[in-house]
Amino acid sequence: MTATTMMRREIDEIPAAAARLLDAAPQDRFRAVGRALGRIGPRAVVTVARGSSDHAATCLKYAIELSAGVPVSSVGPSVASIYGAALHLDRVVALGVSQSGRSGDLVALMRACRQGGAQTLTLTNSVDSPLAGAAATVLDLCAGPEHAVAATKSFTNSVLSGLWLLAYWRGDDGLQAALRAAPDRLQDALALTAAPLREELTRTDRLVVIARGPGLGIAAEVALKAMELCGIHASAHSSAEVLHGPSAILRDGFPVLALGEPAEAGLQDTIDRLEGQGARVLTAPAVTPLHRFLDPLLQLAPVYGALEAAARIRGRNPDRPEFLAKETLTV
Amino acid sequence: MTATTMMRREIDEIPAAAARLLDAAPQDRFRAVGRALGRIGPRAVVTVARGSSDHAATCLKYAIELSAGVPVSSVGPSVASIYGAALHLDRVVALGVSQSGRSGDLVALMRACRQGGAQTLTLTNSVDSPLAGAAATVLDLCAGPEHAVAATKSFTNSVLSGLWLLAYWRGDDGLQAALRAAPDRLQDALALTAAPLREELTRTDRLVVIARGPGLGIAAEVALKAMELCGIHASAHSSAEVLHGPSAILRDGFPVLALGEPAEAGLQDTIDRLEGQGARVLTAPAVTPLHRFLDPLLQLAPVYGALEAAARIRGRNPDRPEFLAKETLTV
Repeated sequence: MTATTMMRREIDEIPAAAARLLDAAPQDRFRAVGRALGRIGPRAVVTVARGSSDHAATCLKYAIELSAGVPVSSVGPSVASIYGAALHLDRVVALGVSQSGRSGDLVALMRACRQGGAQTLTLTNSVDSPLAGAAATVLDLCAGPEHAVAATKSFTNSVLSGLWLLAYWRGDDGLQAALRAAPDRLQDALALTAAPLREELTRTDRLVVIARGPGLGIAAEVALKAMELCGIHASAHSSAEVLHGPSAILRDGFPVLALGEPAEAGLQDTIDRLEGQGARVLTAPAVTPLHRFLDPLLQLAPVYGALEAAARIRGRNPDRPEFLAKETLTV
Repeated sequence: MTATTMMRREIDEIPAAAARLLDAAPQDRFRAVGRALGRIGPRAVVTVARGSSDHAATCLKYAIELSAGVPVSSVGPSVASIYGAALHLDRVVALGVSQSGRSGDLVALMRACRQGGAQTLTLTNSVDSPLAGAAATVLDLCAGPEHAVAATKSFTNSVLSGLWLLAYWRGDDGLQAALRAAPDRLQDALALTAAPLREELTRTDRLVVIARGPGLGIAAEVALKAMELCGIHASAHSSAEVLHGPSAILRDGFPVLALGEPAEAGLQDTIDRLEGQGARVLTAPAVTPLHRFLDPLLQLAPVYGALEAAARIRGRNPDRPEFLAKETLTV
């Protein structure tokens, strides 16, 4: 193929978009807002997001729970938009994540959070959007214009921006150092070959993606992209949870993509068990470990590439999947 | 078929199990613990659960968020068991839900919640289990012995027990009245025919289940049971979220089960849109509305029956799905 898709170009821009977060202006914002979070000492975090952005929020959920020890809840936007519940969110932070910031139900939920007393904060690529307007504080994802329907660089910058906030909130020098190294590491990761995965994605119509802890949001993101780009029925499960029921279907060559390092606690055992019952388990390209909150994101970069290539080989246009729009205005 | 499975007998016991919660002893416990919750005024709730019990927790998440307005977070057991995070849960309630109460990672998470200052509470069918021992307060699900691997009456009693607590916590007479009517309504619901759904479940190998708000946990439960009982690759999505990506696969006769009433805000629009792009949308048996927190549970009863029958027609043993055990001892 000679034509380059917008999606492929945007995947290639992931390292540059990540590097933009190191500039003085976004760093000043992350530092100020992160330190304010440290002073507030939130008792809980509520995330306000849909689709890919909700998966970015799941990545942040694990990072915040593991680092700050406070529970993070993804509240369904319908709680405000359909059911009109009154929320009580004293010393709770409401974190909106949205590329476009234009979904009406997210705006309604963010307003309900603010009325309920939450500190409201939005990570968005559209700082003049309605969702940005509904939050007291807005942070620019700095991903640059994104045209492909399938979000990629705005997804990675959503996760990175949230982690920058957390790094300043917690005064975590190790996480800050890892985040400074992230652009170069993402560039290295993009060069990894994911040929066996791409091959599988060109021919399968079903896929289960497994991961654990900080990798779960990435597994959900991969499953979503496999559906929207390749038309594959894909679902994501915790590599522990998968043994509680979903494993019943994982036989007779059913393809399973295992994210994470097989050396992680329990993952190799799960892979062995699934292979033993007949599943075909593929592993994601191995990356050089950087930080447990970032390693799943490094693994995602070459997987995005495999998904884009497989979509083209399947005769689909990765920039314009059927039935989907870049912005989904849900009620 | 003349042989009756344990699962079928346990489905038939759902109304009797629900009625047992109306007895004086469990009511005294629900009232005492629920009123204590009202006095504490929790700032957030953390749920500790896996598999079907985690889906029951999702049902309770929506009910608590809509009724009490506090965020509910399902914390991954690995947060404690693998990653050893210290949690800060002042004025937070940790709610364990487990049929057997024997999964080591749930016990570790419940202990971490207690160390973090949470009020700990477990709903379990095994009041002398390790998970019960890790919580300050234990409430018996009163489901009676459950032998089939696929949980049914313990699932419905998990949801009902949590709703009883909420009804006393909030002093909600309307919810209490609905809960008192639930056993009879569940009996009515079991008599509903779900023949078109059963037919579809006997022949499909893929299924997407959609629902919204209080129905989402039920959708996840139906998808899980379709996998473990019938070997169908099934996934559950919010009927709003489904338009953000998963809808790309819903064409060419892809079967979709829509839970809830088509009259719900947005559901009929979603159904129309999915049918317009070629999905085959089935609706669950219509139940007489009782309460928005209970209606999805009423709809589940005949769907359980359809899943059990379809498993048998597919030549599977609903009582002993391959590769699965009644208790999964995850680390």
